[in-house]
Order: sequence, then structure tokens, then C-alpha cells
Amino acid sequence: MSLPERQPFSPDFFFRQLFDGESSTYSYLLADLKNGQAVIIDPVLEQAKRDAQLVKDLGFELKYAINTHMHADHITGSGWLRKLTGCQSVIAAASGAKADRHLNEGDRIDFGTHVIDALATPGHTNGCMTYVIKDQGCVFTGDTLLIRGCGRTDFQEGCPRNLYENVHSKIFTLPENFRIYPAHDYKGQMESSVWEEKRYNPRLTKDIEEFVKIMENLNLPYPKKIDASLPANRECGVYDIPKE
Amino acid sequence: MSLPERQPFSPDFFFRQLFDGESSTYSYLLADLKNGQAVIIDPVLEQAKRDAQLVKDLGFELKYAINTHMHADHITGSGWLRKLTGCQSVIAAASGAKADRHLNEGDRIDFGTHVIDALATPGHTNGCMTYVIKDQGCVFTGDTLLIRGCGRTDFQEGCPRNLYENVHSKIFTLPENFRIYPAHDYKGQMESSVWEEKRYNPRLTKDIEEFVKIMENLNLPYPKKIDASLPANRECGVYDIPKE
Ligand SMILES: [Fe+2]
Ligand SMILES: [Fe+2]
Repeated sequence: MSLPERQPFSPDFFFRQLFDGESSTYSYLLADLKNGQAVIIDPVLEQAKRDAQLVKDLGFELKYAINTHMHADHITGSGWLRKLTGCQSVIAAASGAKADRHLNEGDRIDFGTHVIDALATPGHTNGCMTYVIKDQGCVFTGDTLLIRGCGRTDFQEGCPRNLYENVHSKIFTLPENFRIYPAHDYKGQMESSVWEEKRYNPRLTKDIEEFVKIMENLNLPYPKKIDASLPANRECGVYDIPKE
Repeated sequence: MSLPERQPFSPDFFFRQLFDGESSTYSYLLADLKNGQAVIIDPVLEQAKRDAQLVKDLGFELKYAINTHMHADHITGSGWLRKLTGCQSVIAAASGAKADRHLNEGDRIDFGTHVIDALATPGHTNGCMTYVIKDQGCVFTGDTLLIRGCGRTDFQEGCPRNLYENVHSKIFTLPENFRIYPAHDYKGQMESSVWEEKRYNPRLTKDIEEFVKIMENLNLPYPKKIDASLPANRECGVYDIPKE
């Protein structure tokens, strides 16, 4: 079977992927072009001014800064963007992090006529959420599912079995042409699709026992920034922020 | 006036942006999903194996590896992809570089039912081309127009007046919702639009005399890799390539 046809973004849907080179994090600015309401997924502290400027240039009103989870490798920009733009910060209730709005499985976030469905996909962390926009055929997977990879499961209450089951039951069951937008990539890949990851993800195409074995034997170093990132992200990133 | 509505990609159009972190270069894999014919714009030598693997994973047949110009900052992947996939290499005749196919103003390149129009936009170099896909509302500007910037004009027969006039007559006259995809970005920006650059490009919104003054006073360092890149790119990147 070959790659399925695209489900195009609708004319009133604005999509812009952004990158933080230091942490290799992708952020996503989305908006309703009819009324200008916007959200940003996984903003990074050091890029908050860039992102706020872009929101302003485009004439948008930033409604929410949404995190897929409590990141261990960088400080979220959601608290800083909140100060710069007046947006509300959002994260899973299960993350244990402070925010204006806490999400649970099945909650919906809207901006203009667009709707994001929040799916609880714990595994990389307890509070990992995957965000789906059905009408636009796209899914934001955070670190739950990366392009040809997945987030590590050896800290922050990580659990390889949970991750595997959630990817298979909640992401791989989406239509195959849904575009996948992860929180990170380290090889210059920016986007994937359900079709691709179901076929080519070197970890998640294995059976669950083999997957668990792979994840338990990664022997990754302790994350460099975790000791600074977690306390800051627990406070929505507004903890010891740069003065300027 | 606010940001215009999106012109969506059509369901049979495949688009994938890729990044080379070392040189901050964007490459673009495009394909016709009906017959699998694909092209890649501005591939990078060090990423040729990644790109060839992706082409294979997606079941595409790579028809052309196309350069926007003879790059000074990295070695093109077009020669190496040619060996890996059997594609043809393409560049402007005015570049003076070797290739299977040389383009002149107004030439067209097709893959499946999709058509790329080649516009000569010298200024950054003599052989700079801008590639437009009208039906998909997108334009690949190389280093002629960058996001909130433009390529330097102080070597490789660069000419700020030419660059300015070509951007204004050939790119800024496109519909305002056309998406702009450049060859580089150094700030994590991945995409822009004609609407945005006409309003917010800090150089190209100036009048021509001020633009020339800006470009003549950038005082940029001599590009690190130019002495290796130009001889290699003159031979389509297959000059002194890594043995493996
Ligand atoms: Fe993470
Ligand atoms: Fe260049």
C-alpha cells in the first residue's frame, strides 16, 4: 500500500512550525485566520520573544500556550509568553505543573472555529498529552512519538509499556495520512505521518516485549538540564527567568 | 489588511521540509502522490543518505535534485543523490556549475502533474533561481529572499541592486498568501509568506538606495567553507566526496 493522499489544511487554518536549535525543540503556532485567535504548542523560554513578535506581526491574539508535558530538557516558554501576551498556560493535570488550565483525557481546547482534542498518552512522563486536530489531519505527539523514534522512559515516572500501548491505541489508530508533529528531532526531520511511523518506526513496530527490552537498554546519560528544567517547568517556566 | 487565507496544498501534493543543522540549510522533498515522481530542492551532501532513505521509505522515484544556486556554505547533495537514486541534477545555466539539466528564465520542471516555474533572480549570485509552484501557492527562494532577511551580495558576482529588483518584481508580485521557503534560516524560522516579507523584511521594505547601503555595510566575515564548497559545487558536489 502506498502513501495515502494528503488531508489539506483548511484555508482559515494557520500553521507555523518553529525551532529552538539549542534544545532541538519544535514549537507550533496555530491560528484561526478568520478571527485571529491563536495557540502555541511547546514554546521554549529562550524563544518567547521571537514567538511573541511573530504573533504580533501576524495580528493574532494568543489565547493559549500549551505544553505536551513537563519537559526535562528545556524550560517552557508558556509562563514568559503569558507575561508578554496575556495568554493562558495549559498542561495536563497529571503533570503536576502549575498552569492556568489543566487538561484531562478528552478535554478540548478551541481557538476560533478550530478544536484540539487532548488525549492522555502517559509513558514518556505521567503527564504526557497528545493533541489532535481532526479536521486538519494533524497530531502533536510531544515526546510520546518522535520521528522514527520515541521519548525515553527512564525518568519522570516513565513507563515503556504505557508508552507502547498509548501509541498503538491512540496514535496508530488515527487515519494513516494524519501528519505527525513531534516536540523534538535531532536529525533535521520536521514531520512524519501515521502511515510512516506504523511502517518505519524502528522501536514501535516491534512487539511490546521487544520494545520494553529496547527501552530498558538504551543506557542514556542523565539529561544535562533536568535539574534546572523540572523545578522551572513545575512553575510554568516562570522560575528564575532571565531578567531582561 | 490582515493575513490572507491559506491556499492549501492539493491532496496529491507531497511536501516535506528537511534541515541540515551544520549549515542551517533547508531542503524540500516534493512529490506527486499519484505516480510517486519526486524532486528535492537544495539537498545537502551530508544528508544525501538520509534523503535517499526517505525517498525509498515513501516509495517515490526521485526525478530531479534541483539547486537554487551554487552554494558557498555547504556542498550540494545533488551529485551524491544522483549516484544513490539515479535522479538528474539541475541548476541554472548562469551558475556555471555542472549538471544534467541547466535552467534559464521561464523554464519549467515537472514531476507527475505538478510544475515548477524557474525564475532567474540573480543578486545573491549570478545563477540564483527562484522556483514557484503556482497551483500549490508556494515559492522556493534560495538565498535570494530569506525570512526577515536576504542572502549576502558581497561575493560570487553578488549585486544588491539586482537582488532588490528581482525580489520586488518577481517575488513580491506573487499572491500575498504564497508561502515562502528559503534555503536557510538561523533563528528557527521555517517558513514565511509574501504578505509577511512585504511588511516585515527589515531590508527589502527599504527603498533601493537604502537597501544598497545596508548591503554594502554588512562587514561580514569571509565564509568559512567557501573555498571547499565552490569547487565542489561547480562539479555538482561530486568532487572529493566522502568515500563511504
Ligand atoms: Fe520530554
Ligand atoms: Fe548562497
